[in-house]
Amino acid sequence: EPPAPVWDERERLAELAARRARVAEFVGPNSVLVLLGAEPRVYTGDVDYEYRQENNLYYLTHLNQPGARFVLMPGHGRHREVLFLPRPVPAREVWEGRMYTAEAAMRLSGVNEIWDAGEFEPFMRALLERKPFRPKNESVLLAVAARSGPGSGGSAADPVGYDTIFAAMGRKESSLYMLTPGAGEAREFRQEREAAARWAKPDSGLTPRSAWPIFVRLRQVKSPAEVRLIQHAVNLTARGIGRALAAATRSGWEYQFEAEIEYAFRSGNARVGYPSIVACGENATILHYTESSGQCRDGELLLMDVGAEYGHYSADVTRTVPVSGRFTPAQAEIYNAVLAAQEAALRAARPGATLSDVHNAAVRSLKESLLRLGLITERNSTQHGLWFMHGTSHWLGMNVHDVGANDARLEPGMVFTVEPGLYFRADALERLPQTAEWRRFAEAVRPAFEKYKNIGVRVEDDVVITAEGHRNLSAAVPRTVAEIEAAMK
Amino acid sequence: EPPAPVWDERERLAELAARRARVAEFVGPNSVLVLLGAEPRVYTGDVDYEYRQENNLYYLTHLNQPGARFVLMPGHGRHREVLFLPRPVPAREVWEGRMYTAEAAMRLSGVNEIWDAGEFEPFMRALLERKPFRPKNESVLLAVAARSGPGSGGSAADPVGYDTIFAAMGRKESSLYMLTPGAGEAREFRQEREAAARWAKPDSGLTPRSAWPIFVRLRQVKSPAEVRLIQHAVNLTARGIGRALAAATRSGWEYQFEAEIEYAFRSGNARVGYPSIVACGENATILHYTESSGQCRDGELLLMDVGAEYGHYSADVTRTVPVSGRFTPAQAEIYNAVLAAQEAALRAARPGATLSDVHNAAVRSLKESLLRLGLITERNSTQHGLWFMHGTSHWLGMNVHDVGANDARLEPGMVFTVEPGLYFRADALERLPQTAEWRRFAEAVRPAFEKYKNIGVRVEDDVVITAEGHRNLSAAVPRTVAEIEAAMK
Repeated sequence: EPPAPVWDERERLAELAARRARVAEFVGPNSVLVLLGAEPRVYTGDVDYEYRQENNLYYLTHLNQPGARFVLMPGHGRHREVLFLPRPVPAREVWEGRMYTAEAAMRLSGVNEIWDAGEFEPFMRALLERKPFRPKNESVLLAVAARSGPGSGGSAADPVGYDTIFAAMGRKESSLYMLTPGAGEAREFRQEREAAARWAKPDSGLTPRSAWPIFVRLRQVKSPAEVRLIQHAVNLTARGIGRALAAATRSGWEYQFEAEIEYAFRSGNARVGYPSIVACGENATILHYTESSGQCRDGELLLMDVGAEYGHYSADVTRTVPVSGRFTPAQAEIYNAVLAAQEAALRAARPGATLSDVHNAAVRSLKESLLRLGLITERNSTQHGLWFMHGTSHWLGMNVHDVGANDARLEPGMVFTVEPGLYFRADALERLPQTAEWRRFAEAVRPAFEKYKNIGVRVEDDVVITAEGHRNLSAAVPRTVAEIEAAMK
Repeated sequence: EPPAPVWDERERLAELAARRARVAEFVGPNSVLVLLGAEPRVYTGDVDYEYRQENNLYYLTHLNQPGARFVLMPGHGRHREVLFLPRPVPAREVWEGRMYTAEAAMRLSGVNEIWDAGEFEPFMRALLERKPFRPKNESVLLAVAARSGPGSGGSAADPVGYDTIFAAMGRKESSLYMLTPGAGEAREFRQEREAAARWAKPDSGLTPRSAWPIFVRLRQVKSPAEVRLIQHAVNLTARGIGRALAAATRSGWEYQFEAEIEYAFRSGNARVGYPSIVACGENATILHYTESSGQCRDGELLLMDVGAEYGHYSADVTRTVPVSGRFTPAQAEIYNAVLAAQEAALRAARPGATLSDVHNAAVRSLKESLLRLGLITERNSTQHGLWFMHGTSHWLGMNVHDVGANDARLEPGMVFTVEPGLYFRADALERLPQTAEWRRFAEAVRPAFEKYKNIGVRVEDDVVITAEGHRNLSAAVPRTVAEIEAAMK
């Protein structure tokens, strides 16, 4: 069992406080940030999927329980940070599981002001009407005097400290930041959209604004503690792939390999960061194949794209191995083409470069290999896109496809995947556009295509940018043809 | 590996057709039933939880892919049953996984008329306006002439067969059946509620009506094929519990037992029917404890409430075992009290009885045991409810808490759990109402309570009613103190 990282409690709380302070800088003294805890997702009937907290609320509080709301008012003296939490009811806890006490929530999050969740809607209504809000005494679950710092205190004239915010609202210079991202991410944030629409009152002086860019910027660079969590998720993933390699010659079905992999996750107190992709034979040519219901036959390749999620951080590693333990010559040719592309991409992964540089390095290498193998006819073309149709990298973190600006210059602490692939779907040449040019192409590559048909190969590692270049977090997983064949012996 | 049940294809399709025919009887020739496929549930970012089809659509079609819509018009000649499906797009399949071809959907469901999902909204608009709808030719993915039968044909005057329905709409005697159940189940059916609200046009003559009672009635009695699927889910669950028992003396954490159990599920091509409850020591006194993050110590009990879901049917079995492999005398006393109650309840599980009879048998037995152990003072009281606060049984099927009328007379094919328990939360006596009566009670039972404090025991089996009585589907899982201790040796 790889040992789980230990995070000193004082350092953990200091990091959470620093994260909140950076968010407060972006929000500014005039404005307010509101984060809502993730809604439970129903599985069927009265049963939910395992609860998972909304990432950004977790990023600022480490709370992982439904019903939380977090309000950040950097311009407010006393109530700079407030957590709204459902009050624990012992009679309900028997049924619904443990709930944080106010003290436990404070110890976990470092937020000193904890109010009953029932106060949240009255608080928002008062805010929109520029009325100072005082929670009922019995609704303050916990209130520790805010420490001194920027914006602390609250003058005698403004005993509760709303004056900066209300004055800015009067000037229409106040924003209500919520998680209302653009189309691509929007479906996760239905309740935020609905709440924002409910609270969007033009005359309140509080302009709705998306908090998404703030978190995208902050979360793109991981702290050492975050990298340790990702490394542990990768270690558990490595262990899972190791189990699958050991089982390969005796297991007959995709779900059996998946069982080996996910056993390693669960027994390490982790879950899956995304539905495992375990695909044999032609199933490996479907990028997001998640059925895992097919048979694995001698002579086929087994593609495993899997990632443990530990402490809210996900790994994402892919290995493609021969079911029998030995690559055929044709499989090894494709495998080595992908591996060479990955090596080229990894060489490009260093501070100052971009993910485009990493991708272009992979593509240049793949083009050479595809030309040599007779699978494309022109170097200066997009023909390779027929066999390699996805990007080489995505950011990795609390989301498996983590937030981050795609054109960012790489800097230490950025974590991403490097995952070229080649996929030869049996119907690929039939699906080409009906033009003379593509017909000539199909004719030229058909002999090579017939040789490699139904092969799908992807090799994926997780790297963190360092001052010198990068560190491959998944380097321990067998990767070359020789390493894989040795591991499967 | 327990062998999976084999379902003859002709029999499977005949059963699906029979289910649709029974639903059609309830709906009647004047009305229309519309079922929407389940929405994907987002995990985080662009990643979803594993997709699971809405139960009732699955019950009628066996389709397990997003985007399906099923329309049943018993009064319609040619278009009695129509499936709307997204058209497979090879370029998207590379990314999103395989999609049913129309032929595959027909083979799986037995529905002969398959239209492009893009036609669904136009179809609904036309229906509400009483206009005969003809899908565009290229939108009919597949149309096999409907077989003769009730309502088939369509006269010359009504070539597409809407006349019965439209006439009924004119008389306001037509209903639009959708899954819009009452409060308890409603949150699963958000899109149905929204669609029903959108389509509720008083002047259309189509009255919105909940289809829920139809499916509650049908699904309450399981067919032999359904019982075989549940039995297989139970078999995989038994295997998982067996693995946990074998691991008990070497595993230290709840999640490690969970890993053993879920390995058995996944390697048998099953998933969990609900989040596993694996709870050691005092965690066992929380009914829906799902963290599975605690340590298991010698001398504690380990409660496992787990169920594989296979082919859309769930098991639900609980065993409580000593971590060390040997019950202490106090643990055995509580365990045997629960077991005796379960035996009494099982004896009451027979045709003609109700779930209340089963529950009352358990309660009568528990009361005797609790009196004997000094944990209640009055037989004719509700004191026992302090230690046994849940029901003894719930229906079991596609939902772990399956649909069914609670006051139904038991008849062959009904499947339910029998699961008494006793839970001694450490703070139970402090939480009592502050009355003289309860204070006297607390004083009287405190010595016994101190002995059993922090013990939580539940024993749960799954039974199907037969002509003679019942069959215990989970009888193979060690259940008595002696069986459990022997299995853990």
